[in-house]
Amino acid sequence: MARIVQKYGGTSVGDVDRIKNVARRIKEIRDAGNELVVVVSARAGVTNELIARAKAVCPMPSEREMDQLLSIGEQETIALTAMALHGIGVEAVSYTGAQAGIFTDKVHTKAKIKTINAAPLEKDLESGKVIIVAGFQGINDDGQITTLGRGGSDLTAIALAAAIKADKCEIYTDVDGVYTADPRVVKDAKKLSEISYDEMLELASLGSKVMQTRSVEFASKYDVVFEVRSSFNNNPGTIVKQEVAYMEKVLVRGVAVDKDQAKVVVSNIADKPGTAATVFKALANANINVDMIVQNVGRQGVANLTFTVPLSEKDKAVAALAPALKEVGGEATFDEAIAKLSVVGVGMRTHSGVAATLFDALAKAGVNLELISTSEIKISVVIAKAQADEAARVVHKAFGLENL
Amino acid sequence: MARIVQKYGGTSVGDVDRIKNVARRIKEIRDAGNELVVVVSARAGVTNELIARAKAVCPMPSEREMDQLLSIGEQETIALTAMALHGIGVEAVSYTGAQAGIFTDKVHTKAKIKTINAAPLEKDLESGKVIIVAGFQGINDDGQITTLGRGGSDLTAIALAAAIKADKCEIYTDVDGVYTADPRVVKDAKKLSEISYDEMLELASLGSKVMQTRSVEFASKYDVVFEVRSSFNNNPGTIVKQEVAYMEKVLVRGVAVDKDQAKVVVSNIADKPGTAATVFKALANANINVDMIVQNVGRQGVANLTFTVPLSEKDKAVAALAPALKEVGGEATFDEAIAKLSVVGVGMRTHSGVAATLFDALAKAGVNLELISTSEIKISVVIAKAQADEAARVVHKAFGLENL
Repeated sequence: MARIVQKYGGTSVGDVDRIKNVARRIKEIRDAGNELVVVVSARAGVTNELIARAKAVCPMPSEREMDQLLSIGEQETIALTAMALHGIGVEAVSYTGAQAGIFTDKVHTKAKIKTINAAPLEKDLESGKVIIVAGFQGINDDGQITTLGRGGSDLTAIALAAAIKADKCEIYTDVDGVYTADPRVVKDAKKLSEISYDEMLELASLGSKVMQTRSVEFASKYDVVFEVRSSFNNNPGTIVKQEVAYMEKVLVRGVAVDKDQAKVVVSNIADKPGTAATVFKALANANINVDMIVQNVGRQGVANLTFTVPLSEKDKAVAALAPALKEVGGEATFDEAIAKLSVVGVGMRTHSGVAATLFDALAKAGVNLELISTSEIKISVVIAKAQADEAARVVHKAFGLENL
Repeated sequence: MARIVQKYGGTSVGDVDRIKNVARRIKEIRDAGNELVVVVSARAGVTNELIARAKAVCPMPSEREMDQLLSIGEQETIALTAMALHGIGVEAVSYTGAQAGIFTDKVHTKAKIKTINAAPLEKDLESGKVIIVAGFQGINDDGQITTLGRGGSDLTAIALAAAIKADKCEIYTDVDGVYTADPRVVKDAKKLSEISYDEMLELASLGSKVMQTRSVEFASKYDVVFEVRSSFNNNPGTIVKQEVAYMEKVLVRGVAVDKDQAKVVVSNIADKPGTAATVFKALANANINVDMIVQNVGRQGVANLTFTVPLSEKDKAVAALAPALKEVGGEATFDEAIAKLSVVGVGMRTHSGVAATLFDALAKAGVNLELISTSEIKISVVIAKAQADEAARVVHKAFGLENL
């Protein structure tokens, strides 16, 4: 008997038949004598539908009201999943984020989990019920509904796994696991049987759609070993855990492409202390994630600042930058026709030559590099969005990932 | 300046454009300096969609899970309505039933409001914000989401009006007010400018779709005067209040037809004390509303019990009756091809001859009476569903309601 936390994503619970399918999977595991907490997302498409409706009534909806709105997506799935379990004779009870005792800070639409009071849930669990928890949502100390941002359901699962000391945490999704590259783009991409938190983190932060950074960070912090696998078959997935020694033999473990980024160039600002701070403080106050910052100083004491922001936060970034630029001078231009390509591997720490191989492969394919940034275990470049898929293929080949 | 509670039904907030329309109405009233609490229902059709989805995963969904599910309908509308108000520059904040402090008992899908803690809401109201409250829902002492049953949004509005001592309560719907009969069936039906709680109660309980009984009862108990009117025009509606003397001049104020009833005949049960009690206790324990009870004693000490139940509760009634009939003997048959027709008017209390006029009109139209029941201010008959519309027309004419 094990205590298992499972998470099913939006496609896995996309319609009534898929919910029944998930219920049958849960029953099998329950019938084998396991304790089971299941986190579900909103049905695929529901969150986007709700956002579209919100934008139709108000171009810049309040984030507090967005959370009131978006949290209903998961609330629908938990109730339907619990009902589907009842329908096949499994005792189950659904919990909203608030009911599951998931307390967050007050940052609407991007709340952080502060603490989990899992006592009521554990009581139901010990009485033999399967617990269905709404992913992606919590409650703050003022009793306001909060949401955890995209990918928040994974975070809910991992945080619950830590809180109830689960033996296993399984993240079910519509892909088989983590691949060396997006298999839709790179035909001979290989599935990885395991990967370290750090590598997964970089892949997540770089647009590999499997998981969001925060969930992996949380898992790493609390040492929650989890498996990413498909709810549509029984193939083993990819296990994500702390780095182990033999992992370093592999130089590069994956190539990730992120097309949901915009490049921002803030030009002609005064080259003096505090200027960059003003710009990035304005973005930070608006909770915008900035990446790949580069500063060039040109002639006559003026500087250019270049960085990337998520495409979905471009409008917020435009609004946040306006007052800051009034203060420090300069103007901002936005380029949406870019993509970020990255190679990731803990093996890079102890080997050189990865950058050279990457730049060489891209140069041969005629791909221009607009920005470069590196960390201990990854190298990222900003390139033209139109060239991104082809670039992924040549880089994948250059590192021999098809033979991994 | 007045403190106003308004309630908009599902058709009034049926889509994004209608929600924006409601927001504009609210803004006008707010701009005139009024304090405003607005109760909204789920978008028309949403609740039925959710019920259909629930039944697709489980034929008899648990009522606790039904409430988790159905409450999302209103939660969507409150958020969208608040956003639509923000979009036109009106400060507004949405409240779920739980956030609005609407505490209920523990009867899922049909909870009764026990108390309202309106303090947080009043604080926002006094600070000038428009308050948007989810109708139809509350929370019980265990922190479980409850729903108030169909028509629950009206109840939310009237209970809030009582709790915050509102000056006015306006129930906006897709009809202009209360008519002497359903205008879609009886062409020359007239709109009533006012009606007593008692008359409204009988009309509500008899299938006039304007409002549910419980809301009117609640209004009567707490003396909340309210107006039923359309959100699609500015016509005055029907004011509902305590009876006033001149109302008695009118003998019959309306003809109502309820097609959502099933007739139940429990036959061949032993004619001895306690038999009927066993049958109706079983139905009461399942929270099924029974009406128009008639008992006939036949030969050889066996009796027949006849009564009506709401069509929507037929399956529950079948399940509830089975063990009771095992105990007392007899069998139950259900007839869905019936309708209940009623004439209502406080004037009946002091006048005779209403029954004679009614039966005569129906006899002339060839309508057979299957059951008859009367109260102080109404007479109801069960007839064939196929004859119900024609029966409404001849009865309306027989009482001269087209000249009211």
